[in-house]
Amino acid sequence: MPSKNYNISDFGEKKLIKRLLSQSQKLPFKSTFFDQLSIKSWIDDAALLDFGDSYIVATSDLLLESAHFPEKMTFRQMGQKIVTVNASDLAAMGSNPIGIILAMGLPRDMLITDFDELVDGILEACQKYQMALIGGDTNESAELTLCGTCIGIVPKDKVLMKSGAEEGDVVAVTGPLGLAAAGFEVLFGKELKIKELNPDFKDRVLKHALAPEARLEKGVLLGKTGAVTSATDITDGLISEIGEIIDASPDGVGITLYEDMIPIPPEVREVAEIMDKNPLEMVLYYGEDFELLVTIKKDGFMDLKHSLELHQIGYVDSSGQITMIDKDGKTEIIKPKGYEHFKKSG
Amino acid sequence: MPSKNYNISDFGEKKLIKRLLSQSQKLPFKSTFFDQLSIKSWIDDAALLDFGDSYIVATSDLLLESAHFPEKMTFRQMGQKIVTVNASDLAAMGSNPIGIILAMGLPRDMLITDFDELVDGILEACQKYQMALIGGDTNESAELTLCGTCIGIVPKDKVLMKSGAEEGDVVAVTGPLGLAAAGFEVLFGKELKIKELNPDFKDRVLKHALAPEARLEKGVLLGKTGAVTSATDITDGLISEIGEIIDASPDGVGITLYEDMIPIPPEVREVAEIMDKNPLEMVLYYGEDFELLVTIKKDGFMDLKHSLELHQIGYVDSSGQITMIDKDGKTEIIKPKGYEHFKKSG
Repeated sequence: MPSKNYNISDFGEKKLIKRLLSQSQKLPFKSTFFDQLSIKSWIDDAALLDFGDSYIVATSDLLLESAHFPEKMTFRQMGQKIVTVNASDLAAMGSNPIGIILAMGLPRDMLITDFDELVDGILEACQKYQMALIGGDTNESAELTLCGTCIGIVPKDKVLMKSGAEEGDVVAVTGPLGLAAAGFEVLFGKELKIKELNPDFKDRVLKHALAPEARLEKGVLLGKTGAVTSATDITDGLISEIGEIIDASPDGVGITLYEDMIPIPPEVREVAEIMDKNPLEMVLYYGEDFELLVTIKKDGFMDLKHSLELHQIGYVDSSGQITMIDKDGKTEIIKPKGYEHFKKSG
Repeated sequence: MPSKNYNISDFGEKKLIKRLLSQSQKLPFKSTFFDQLSIKSWIDDAALLDFGDSYIVATSDLLLESAHFPEKMTFRQMGQKIVTVNASDLAAMGSNPIGIILAMGLPRDMLITDFDELVDGILEACQKYQMALIGGDTNESAELTLCGTCIGIVPKDKVLMKSGAEEGDVVAVTGPLGLAAAGFEVLFGKELKIKELNPDFKDRVLKHALAPEARLEKGVLLGKTGAVTSATDITDGLISEIGEIIDASPDGVGITLYEDMIPIPPEVREVAEIMDKNPLEMVLYYGEDFELLVTIKKDGFMDLKHSLELHQIGYVDSSGQITMIDKDGKTEIIKPKGYEHFKKSG
């Protein structure tokens, strides 16, 4: 594609990253200090630095008020969220947390009480995920901007990566899907329609959208089993993440999903009905659930299913594509179309 | 100070960071994985993670178009700068570079050719500082936002920190000061006045403002000498950085500077004259030079002065304050007033 006169919204976020990394890989990298230090993993949720028997794991996420913080999100929830999205990247690698560094861009008219609430949220989440706040930096900016960088560590034989799925593996998720998507429907939906919703359901889906949790403990436990062949966290919708696992695998690896095995809770179905949406679409193409998506050796799965509360949703095949088998047994081939910043719709 | 109704511009950037870190230190931190892993350094340019005989060094910086990228800065220079500011934090710790992670917020109408130029600048700087680009993330944002996180490593006995200055130490800088400040004067000055400036001088000061360089190699060499007792990089003006070193030291440590020992090059003096500024003020209160400020044991200094091209500017005393001795031998006590985001003037 000739690049002249295109702007970045003609590309998706993932294409931009690939453009960046493909340029970067042309560079010869030589560590001036550590002969044995090498860099692994360009396509994963975090970078891996080879360090003796372990990997140092590093990941960075940027959250911007206009894109990531709905109007009803409190400053405490914003603080929790920047830690959570980073912790979720560690979870996807099976990594133990060490600490987080926060660089913040703050609007100059932000109230100091709001800043303190933001800090409270950051520290609450740090404590929850057992990581230290190891550094910080503030700048003035037009919109509230939070950049978190998490450092973790994982023994080399316990690391989880996107590559590694093999034909016959079970495909599973760590919990119900679509609750965050339902929460965003409620946040942005019409008041009149939302009144029809069961108040308990409303609270639960809003909590998932505004105060999501990372599956950090479960990620570490999954890494320790030795049975997980690939993993990622579900931030961009199930299909997009399945596509990532297929892309990271050798040619030929594909995944078959069964519609009626996907754990869609009643809250999601009720919101979908009231909002006139398809609940399956909400699960497949909306993100932010922060559950983990894993492929697991078939022999190991039954033991882990109960102890780690895993839900099988399909299996790894050799089709090289994503196949969905619906409730009536009909087969459909689906293309990834996850949430992409920049991407023009249509 | 009662915090109600104050907004963050009533505080300075450094006070906000201290507010954040003081809250954070109240938290009990327990690593779930590494008994021997501890966190050092809350006040330094980067965080230190205790890792056997070495520290893993991690630092994060956020650059925002409106605050950090003058109109005449090219996309290539912006890409270079996000790497440079992070590399400079490693330099201040004497740390060897490993890699950098870049999280970017990009306006949706950014041209792909501009994105590619930004990436070229990032990669050029990575190669210059011998670090790998180990990860990336892009988001849509209102203004161009670059968050870089650098990871480095340094043997424990070679690390440089802000604390450690002792009475009698030599205070020195790694190069001439004020060139970046002069460059910003030219960038924001009146066209007519700038025409009076020697074109070679103009090019040189603009280069320092638009394409600054980190003293990474010199930082590592300084750490290896074992003679440096404290160090930081000069991003916020000399007086602000001297204040940081005094703050990090035990009560009583102070620094005396000699005006005529401060290396102010002719370019800075000429710009100051044309722009009707005080060249000393430009050096003391403007930042962005990225030279290193160090205190060095007196016995070790003479050997290092030539090999590392150091300029003595004063000595460490026991006054607990900053003293400036001017060209006529007159003594003045000065208070730090470095560049602070948010801080209202007056």
